[in-house]
This record gives sequence, structure tokens and C-alpha cells, in this order.
Amino acid sequence: MQLGMIGLGRMGADMVRRLSQGGQQCVVFDVQPAAVQRLQQEGIDGASTLEDLVARLQKPRAVWLMVPAAVVDSTLDKLVPLLEPGDIVIDGGNSHYHDDIRRGNELAGKQLHYVDVGTSGGVAGRERGYCLMIGGETDIVKHLEPVFAALAPGVAAAPRTADRQQDGSTAERGFLHCGPQGAGHFVKMVHNGIEYGMMAAYAEGLNILRHANAGKQSREIDAETSPLRDPQFYQYDLNLGDIAELWRRGSVISSWLLDLIAGTLSRDGELKDYAGRVSDSGEGRWTIDAAIDEGVPVPVLSAALFARFSSRGEADFANRVLSAMRKDFGGHAEKPGSATA
Amino acid sequence: MQLGMIGLGRMGADMVRRLSQGGQQCVVFDVQPAAVQRLQQEGIDGASTLEDLVARLQKPRAVWLMVPAAVVDSTLDKLVPLLEPGDIVIDGGNSHYHDDIRRGNELAGKQLHYVDVGTSGGVAGRERGYCLMIGGETDIVKHLEPVFAALAPGVAAAPRTADRQQDGSTAERGFLHCGPQGAGHFVKMVHNGIEYGMMAAYAEGLNILRHANAGKQSREIDAETSPLRDPQFYQYDLNLGDIAELWRRGSVISSWLLDLIAGTLSRDGELKDYAGRVSDSGEGRWTIDAAIDEGVPVPVLSAALFARFSSRGEADFANRVLSAMRKDFGGHAEKPGSATA
Amino acid sequence: MQLGMIGLGRMGADMVRRLSQGGQQCVVFDVQPAAVQRLQQEGIDGASTLEDLVARLQKPRAVWLMVPAAVVDSTLDKLVPLLEPGDIVIDGGNSHYHDDIRRGNELAGKQLHYVDVGTSGGVAGRERGYCLMIGGETDIVKHLEPVFAALAPGVAAAPRTADRQQDGSTAERGFLHCGPQGAGHFVKMVHNGIEYGMMAAYAEGLNILRHANAGKQSREIDAETSPLRDPQFYQYDLNLGDIAELWRRGSVISSWLLDLIAGTLSRDGELKDYAGRVSDSGEGRWTIDAAIDEGVPVPVLSAALFARFSSRGEADFANRVLSAMRKDFGGHAEKPGSATA
Amino acid sequence: MQLGMIGLGRMGADMVRRLSQGGQQCVVFDVQPAAVQRLQQEGIDGASTLEDLVARLQKPRAVWLMVPAAVVDSTLDKLVPLLEPGDIVIDGGNSHYHDDIRRGNELAGKQLHYVDVGTSGGVAGRERGYCLMIGGETDIVKHLEPVFAALAPGVAAAPRTADRQQDGSTAERGFLHCGPQGAGHFVKMVHNGIEYGMMAAYAEGLNILRHANAGKQSREIDAETSPLRDPQFYQYDLNLGDIAELWRRGSVISSWLLDLIAGTLSRDGELKDYAGRVSDSGEGRWTIDAAIDEGVPVPVLSAALFARFSSRGEADFANRVLSAMRKDFGGHAEKPGSATA
Repeated sequence: MQLGMIGLGRMGADMVRRLSQGGQQCVVFDVQPAAVQRLQQEGIDGASTLEDLVARLQKPRAVWLMVPAAVVDSTLDKLVPLLEPGDIVIDGGNSHYHDDIRRGNELAGKQLHYVDVGTSGGVAGRERGYCLMIGGETDIVKHLEPVFAALAPGVAAAPRTADRQQDGSTAERGFLHCGPQGAGHFVKMVHNGIEYGMMAAYAEGLNILRHANAGKQSREIDAETSPLRDPQFYQYDLNLGDIAELWRRGSVISSWLLDLIAGTLSRDGELKDYAGRVSDSGEGRWTIDAAIDEGVPVPVLSAALFARFSSRGEADFANRVLSAMRKDFGGHAEKPGSATA
Repeated sequence: MQLGMIGLGRMGADMVRRLSQGGQQCVVFDVQPAAVQRLQQEGIDGASTLEDLVARLQKPRAVWLMVPAAVVDSTLDKLVPLLEPGDIVIDGGNSHYHDDIRRGNELAGKQLHYVDVGTSGGVAGRERGYCLMIGGETDIVKHLEPVFAALAPGVAAAPRTADRQQDGSTAERGFLHCGPQGAGHFVKMVHNGIEYGMMAAYAEGLNILRHANAGKQSREIDAETSPLRDPQFYQYDLNLGDIAELWRRGSVISSWLLDLIAGTLSRDGELKDYAGRVSDSGEGRWTIDAAIDEGVPVPVLSAALFARFSSRGEADFANRVLSAMRKDFGGHAEKPGSATA
Repeated sequence: MQLGMIGLGRMGADMVRRLSQGGQQCVVFDVQPAAVQRLQQEGIDGASTLEDLVARLQKPRAVWLMVPAAVVDSTLDKLVPLLEPGDIVIDGGNSHYHDDIRRGNELAGKQLHYVDVGTSGGVAGRERGYCLMIGGETDIVKHLEPVFAALAPGVAAAPRTADRQQDGSTAERGFLHCGPQGAGHFVKMVHNGIEYGMMAAYAEGLNILRHANAGKQSREIDAETSPLRDPQFYQYDLNLGDIAELWRRGSVISSWLLDLIAGTLSRDGELKDYAGRVSDSGEGRWTIDAAIDEGVPVPVLSAALFARFSSRGEADFANRVLSAMRKDFGGHAEKPGSATA
Repeated sequence: MQLGMIGLGRMGADMVRRLSQGGQQCVVFDVQPAAVQRLQQEGIDGASTLEDLVARLQKPRAVWLMVPAAVVDSTLDKLVPLLEPGDIVIDGGNSHYHDDIRRGNELAGKQLHYVDVGTSGGVAGRERGYCLMIGGETDIVKHLEPVFAALAPGVAAAPRTADRQQDGSTAERGFLHCGPQGAGHFVKMVHNGIEYGMMAAYAEGLNILRHANAGKQSREIDAETSPLRDPQFYQYDLNLGDIAELWRRGSVISSWLLDLIAGTLSRDGELKDYAGRVSDSGEGRWTIDAAIDEGVPVPVLSAALFARFSSRGEADFANRVLSAMRKDFGGHAEKPGSATA
């Protein structure tokens, strides 16, 4: 089927390429003309303006937004007046699902349909396919199935689950209508929350392995430094790249994230290219917010989020409070810092 | 090569089968004669006593122990006097690496060699192969390589890591000499610590999804119950089996653990067969102990461990303290419990 | 000065009593006539309706709401039409500070003034005085100072802080204008977040002390139960009531919360009156929400909140996921539960 | 009674002064002669060598060690040969209770008595008195009661607990025989674990208050930075010194730690004297180790410990792993750091 794509950044452009390879017809637009031209050179139909894009699409139109979450609303402000009853808008970016619910209601008032799609896959998605979590009206989602099927990895991307009841769900094909508006981004949000937790599990474990030679280092002996009681147990110099590679085969913790970090550690076991200031783009925060609203305990997912905050220095004042208290009650002077890790 | 296997429980028996299929010659023993007989019926060489086992092995003998960690020492007490200088003992179970170091020293005094092998793979290992993390003397580990290679999954079990330097490491084949005695179980211990964290990440995320319809339920309105401020945001009835299946293809959080839970949720989305009392078999605890000794922060891995403790009621007294304090300062009576989840 | 009080529950009634003893004139109202009559019998001026209350107050009127957060808005719906420009409404309950900001704006449109007061002190407040965290317009807060001073504990309630600059702040008297509307409940919210963390610190510590005899108990020996490696280190039967009492004098962790729990443990070291289902009334949740918005790591405060959720069974499904995974990869059957703690 | 004191650092010297004021006779020794001379100038009996100290003490001798935990054993190596059956050694420092149990057994073989005393109070102890947690043989502890009573704060240091049964416990006087050898340091260890949790609760809460003006700052708008959805809710510039002072009177979270931090924040609201590298001296670690052995969940106490580790850069490698993974799957470049907090 035909699809208009707005937003040709890394994700949007690759999705257009995968759609075209999958036999879907795309018309594309971006505020940066160069981004449109790049795809035009690959044989994709490009539009020069939003009006141009809308004019080139058959009715009912289907327009996919793949723009930063912060500009979805301003893009809709320009796009919606150009559309006609029955047209469909799809937000495939990282919107907060609260915004989906609001937008869905607003567009419904204009007889437009709104579909939210949480998209996972990252830079590997063009080859691997994208995992699509979809929210919206049932018949509209059904109507868009050719698009979703072309973007998704397909059944063959993983071994079939034994005994799985073949009940018509598209889950095995890599896309799923999760529920009404917002459900797609809700499920994607939690997906990213899980991702934070998994990443932290690997990161903490690898950090323990890296310090398995702690007994070889001398520690200062003073009242401010906890001594290592049994240094003989920490004499291992471990090869993290080899260990991560090892775990990829046959172990309980094999995963795609492990595949990635094994490759990186194999090339640079010290990760010298990184300073360790870890960003978070929002979904991890929203996941904790949702858990709190629901009254669901998330000690692991929240600890993973807060470790990222701390990596960026956001605990600094709290730490100064702790040092001040130690000085106040115990007379402990703060030890001057030395580069660690 | 030839290997003696002591301990024919679920793991030990399957490992013998895989070794035999891989062309290795096994002589087996278990304190339960029936376990020996089962393998004899499959054509494996069985021994009736430890003495018999030792007698049937060529020198230098290699004897693999696959017994509960709690009986390794008592088994060694009987086995070691039967061995001769140059013989090799391998502990493939879940020993604490401190015990490996002690045993290695003890056996060295008798001119025996000790190798510790952390074995991951679980019930699927017979088919998938076992991921082997190995500690011990370099030449001894090298000598045992045919055994390790037969047990491990082999290179083909996962896509090759791009740009990986071919430096002679066996990591890609699914087994690795990690370091001196104890290194194998140390790496396996941390592996299990990571496993706890990953499992908790999935479990917490799925719990959030399951309660995504919290807004449909009425909450009591009283000072003891935090109200759900925006029930309209929690109206989703999500199909967890479908969602887990969906994530298996193309998503960032795909993994072998996800493969497993997707299958189980597909069959029983409520997990009615389980009460939620989660055991821990020790490695998760030892991982936190090691991190604390090293001074490495593990907020995620520890939270995962403590959630298991709490699932077994071990927080009950702490919770009673909290309720008592609330009564004392605020006059809050404890709300009677009702089945939740 | 004169104050109208709406809401004569435990907190409201005691505050009226303290105000009267402090020389302030109160006119009181409650939807329950009996609550009004109780205070009338103590010589307090009671009103039969909201209209009656408003009629009895001198202009500009000051009306203090001490009602459940869930009915503040509906109470305002009835009260506000009765007020006149220049009148003041004070919300002394547990409102979310977002609501304060909204209400402040709404009332400003009617030339009414809104003041939010976070009130700490609990059932002991009538004797000890209430700690008051205040948000609102500077001149209005100044105008109400006699009321705040009568409710607050006063300087003598604690030793003066050495070197404290006498800059006109009322902090030492037990009440403080923290900032514009919402600031009072914001500071009270964080106060309660800290309270959760402190309570959990005591509760976890006391739980460790209570299990200091773990080495005296026999543990099952199986692969599902982590053995206690050194039972000789856990042979202490400790008297928790005595220990809590001990810590009240001279220790770094003495506090008012400790005073309370020492008394309770002295009477019932087992806390048999409690089941350990710990409620949370909202402020702890909002504290974590605010921290996440700000990007501030709160691993301790969030862990305290989530432990309360878990105490009410809200982790049950997550725990079932964990047990299911353990069965899937390791063949581990869930151990039947037995009462612990 | 008469007491020998070895170790005249900050704690030891002040304890001698308090003992002398309390009518106990002290003979003191330190490896630094100047430390002995300082107390001699205050009229205290000083010894020039260990032999001299022992010679000046009446039998059965009581010798209190107040030396760094790391040198207790080497001090005992020199002291014990000078003692005679029936003499008593007291370790009042921060020893691990495992060491107490070992030393107690060793000294019992020589008919010497060993008493462990966990001492809380810090630099304020000389004036406030010291909270003493005691482990050892009942009759020996009873024999030393005059010493403990002189060091402890006494009943008057806090309001009596209502309804407390007067059962002969010395808890109200500020010292307590907690149990057999090691029990004193065990209780002190957990005391410090609680202290870590309480300190972190205040520190995290104050950090939230400090960032309550986050909405006034502009954030970068890019895919790497989570936007603040509602900046209007974070417009407060709060005075932390005033708020901490406020909470000291009438609030649920008043405590001695709060008294201290209120004073410090009053003098320097920015805590400019501190960099935020928070030391830990061991007891917090041992508390978590003990909890893990007992199977007691300690999510809050452990989070407090790990935040200290992270404050010293010990999470750096884990954070680099996270940044590397984000680059690998999402193409996210790490944002350059800028000083925050």
C-alpha cells in the first residue's frame, strides 16, 4: 500500500528503505530538503512540502510521522488542516502515551484516525526488521497491516515457540495490535524500562568482573577506607571481551544486547571511547511513573534509571550532604579524590 | 578422551549423553545405582563403586564431579585417596569459588590437579550445548579441551561477532579458560548475578503491563489508600503472551530468557501454576558479597536478590515495624489484607 | 486572630484545641454535626453550615481546610461562592502541590488568596506542636503568622542551632514560609519521602537483628535453598526493645521515630498486632515522581516506597514470572511456602 | 573502678576524660608519647610502655583498646603475653564481630576474658555520653558496669519511654549487654547500617528540594535529553538551611542527624567545602553481608551503601558499558559532560 513518511532521520530513512524493499510505495518529506533528496536518489518519491506530500497520497491517506517527540504536536498543527475525514496519522516515534490519548481524541473530533506505534530495533532495524507495538482502532490497524508486515522482521526471524496457539495474532510476525490508542507507546515504554534493567544487569556484572583483581592493589590503611579482608580472593585478571563472547552460546543470559557488547568489548576491552555519562531519553522515567501510579514495585528498573542519573553527576549534592554529616558527627574529613575505575 | 563422571542427576546424566554423542568415552558413577543403570541401558560404561570407577580410568585420570555443592567435599574425601599423582578432578557444579581455591591448594599438596567449571545451560543444555567457564592450570585445561569442546555449543550456535580478532581464544566455541583456580566459578557466579537482574527486569516490566488496567478497578477512598490520580491512563487489557512473543523478533530486549517466558505465557498468561515464592541457590548472594568486597556498586543486582527474599516473606518483620510506626505517629490502623495481584 | 476551621477529624479537632489554648479564636464546621458539638462542649464556637461559618468570620476571612485531599475541591466548590475578595483559604491537608498551583490560580481570578500548609506532627502534634511548611503570597502568609505561631512548637522545643544567623526566619519557631503557592506541600511531600526512607532504614536494621539467630535454625539441604555457610556467626538472640531503647541515648541514629518504635517494641517485641501490610498515602509516590522529573537519583527513597508496595502483595505476579522462568530454564520446581519471619 | 586505656586518638582521649570526670581511674597508653603527655597534663595517669601500663593496673586488670580495627590483632599480640588469668580485654573500636568471636575463643584458652563494645557518639560523645553496645560473658560485663555507666549518657539524656517495664535492663542508661562475644559489635554494625540509610534519606530528600527550581533552567532539546514535561511545577528556590531547621521541631523526621545537618546548611547552604566523595569505613558493608547470610532483604540499606561507592567513581566502568550499548543499538553518541549539581 501507499504511505507518506514525514521525518527522514536515521530511523525514518531506513524504514522507508525497508518498506520500499518490501513492496510498499512511499512518499517522503522532511524539513531538511537534503534528506528528501538522498532518498529520491534511491528511487523513492519525494515531496517538497507538506502540501505536496498530502496531494500525492491516495485517499484515505496514511501518513507516518517519524520525528522527535518534541515536534510531533507542531508537525500535527501543520499537517492536520491538510487532511480529510478518513485519513490516518501514525506516530512511530517516542511519544508519551498520554499524548497519544490526547491526540487521538483531538483527531477523532475531525474524523481523522490516529495510530501510535512503538518502534524498536535501532540502527540494526533496516536489516533485522523493526519490532512494532501498535495502539489504535482495530479496523484502522488492520487496514495498515501491509505496512507493518513489511517493516517487521517476520516469523522466520526467531525459532517458533512450541505449543503456541495459532490464534490469528500477528505477534510471531513481529508486529502486534496491543490495544486502543496509547497502548502501542505504553508497551514500548515498558519495553524500554526493561531494556534499562537488562543493560544495568550486564553493566554491573561486567564491572564486578573487571575489579576481580582488586586484591592485587594496595589500599590505604586509615579509618576512612574499608579494608579488603581477604585479598587472596580477588586476584583474577579477566578478559571481558572473551567472557562476553563466551556467554553468547549456551548460557542462560544470551541476548541481543550481549551480542552487541561482546563485539564492542572484543574491540576495546577498556571502553576508552566512553566517559560514562549515560543519557536517558524519557521512556525509562515514564515506566517508573506508570509503575508508581499502578502501585507496582519496580526496585530493579528504578535502580537502573537512577544509576544513569548518578552517572551524570545528579547525586553530587546528596553526596556532599553525606560528607558533611560524616564530618559533623564523626570528624571525618573527606578523602581527596583520585581517579578510580 | 576418557572421562569419569560422578553424579548422574538431571545435569550430570545429560552431560554424559552429550559427551558420548560427541565421541568422548565416559565411565559413570552415582550413589543411586538406578541412575547408573539408566545410562548403562543407553550403552554408557557404568561403575558400581568409586573404586570401580577409578579402576576403569586410564592414567592420568580425569574425574568430573556433578554433585550438589554441599556434598563436593565429602565426595572428595572418598575419591582423593583412590587417585594417583597427575590425576585431575573437575568440579562442574555450583561451588563457591572460595572452596575451589581451598581445594586446589589441598589437592596440589597431593600432586593432584583441580579444575573448576561453571556450567550454564540448564535443561536445554543437552541440545543447545553447555556454556563452560573454566578455572585451573593452563596445561591441564588444555589437556581437557576435547571434553569441553564436546560439551560446548560450538561456533555455529550464534552468528560470528564482526571484527573479532582470532587470537586463539576458545570463547566463540562456548568454553573458556578464564583464569587460575576459582576463576571458572567466579565468572559463573557473576553470570548468575546478571541472570537475576535480567529476570527481574522482565518480571517487573510484565507486572506493569499486567496492571495497565488499574484504572478500571475502583479503589477505596480513605486516608490509607493513595488514589490513582488519572485512571483514564490505565485502561489497557494487555495480552502478555502475545507481547512477549512480539518482543522476540527485532526488539532490543530479545534474549533466550524472553524466548522461555514467551512460551510459558502463551500457554498460561496468568501463571496459575506458581505461587511466587522465588528460591535462590546462592550465586546471586555471592555475587553481591564479591561486589561489596571490591567496592563495586550493584544496585540492580542486589535489588533483584532482595526481591526474591521478600517473595518468601523475609521482609515480614520489617513490614510490621513500618505498620507499627505508622500507628504510633499517625494513628493509622493497618488495613486488613485482601488478595491482590 | 480569628480562624474558620473546616474538617474536625483527628487532626483538625486537635489543631483547633491547640489554637484555642494559644489564644486564637476559632469558628469550626464539619459535615458531621457530632464533631462540631464535641468542640462546642469544649467552649469552641461552632457553625451549623458553611454559610453560618462564613457569616461568623470577620473580613478579611481566613478559612482553614483540614479535610481529606480527595474532597478539597468539592469543599471549595461550595465554600468559594460564599467568600468575598480579600478572603483567604488555607489548605492544611495532604494535597498534591500541583493542585495547590491550580487552585491558587483559580482563586486569584476571584481575588481570593490561597495558602498551602504541609502539616507534620501526627497524633502527638497537639502536645508537641505542629511543624508547618507554608506556600503562598508573602503578605498573606505574614498576616496569618499568629495562627502559625500558635500551632507550631516554638523555639524551645529543640536546642538552638549554634552559629545560626538570626535573619528573621521563623524556621526556629517551627513554621516557615517556603515559597509561592505549592511550596508548602512540596516541602511536606519531600519530608514524607524522607520519612519513608528513615522508617525503612530502622525496619530493615531491626529485621537483621531479629534474624541474628539464623544459625540456630536448621535449613533444608537441597538445590533450591542457599545454605548458610557459617552458622556459628548467627547465634544471637537479641532483645529488640532493649536495643531500640539503648539507641535513644547518645547514638548517631537517635530520632523521634526511634523514640516511638522503642516504646512499641518494649511492649511487644514481636509486633504481633500487625500483619505487615504497609499503606502509603501518596506523598512518597509524589516524591519519586518529582525526583524523576528533576533528574535526581533517589535509590533509597524509591526502595522504601517499593518495599511498601511489595508488602501488600503487588509484586506477586512478578514473582510468579521469576518462578516460571526458573522452571523453564533449570527445571526448578517452586518450593511450597511455609510461614517465615 | 580502674581501667587501662590503649589508644588515645580523638575517641580514646575523650573517653578517658569522660571516665575521669565520672570518677573512674584511668591509666593510659599510646604509641605516640605526645598523646599520653597531653592527658598527663590534664592529671591522668600515663604509662610509657605496655609493660608499664600493665604493671600499674590492679588485678584482675581491665584494659580497653581504642585503636584502629586494623591494628587490634597486632596490639593483642603484644599485650596478651603481659596479662594473667582473670584479666579482661575490651575492644571498643570498630572490629568486625567475626574477629570478636575468634579473639574471644583465643583469649579464653589463656583464661583471659574478652569483651566487645560498639561505641556510638562521635565527637559529641564527650559531652553527650557514648551509646555502648556490649558483647561478652555476663559476669564480666557486670563487673565492668561502673565503667560503662560513666561513659554512657544516663537515663536523663532522653525522656523516659512510657509503660516501659523496669526489668533491670540498663538500656535506658545508654549501655546494654546485648549477648555473648561479638554481639556488641554486631548490634553496632547494624546501627551503622541504619545510619547509612537515614543519612541517604536526608541526602536524597535535600537534593530534591535543591533541584525544585529545575523548571527555571533551559534544557537542551535533543533525542539524548529527556525533556521536563511540566516546567511550571519546578519553579521553587528553597532555602535548605531554613527547611532543615524547621523540621527539627514538631516533625516526624526530627533526629540528631537532622540537628547536625541543619547547623551545617545554616552556615553553608551550598556545602562548598565538600566534593561529595563519600567514604565508608566497613560496617555498612558488613551489615549487607550479614543480611544476605540471614536471607533478610535490605533494599534501602544496600542502596545507601552503593550510592557511596558510586560517589567515589566505582560505577564508572559500568556506566561506560551502558554508553557503549546505547551507541551500539541506537547510534547514540555520548553527550559531553558538563558540571552539574
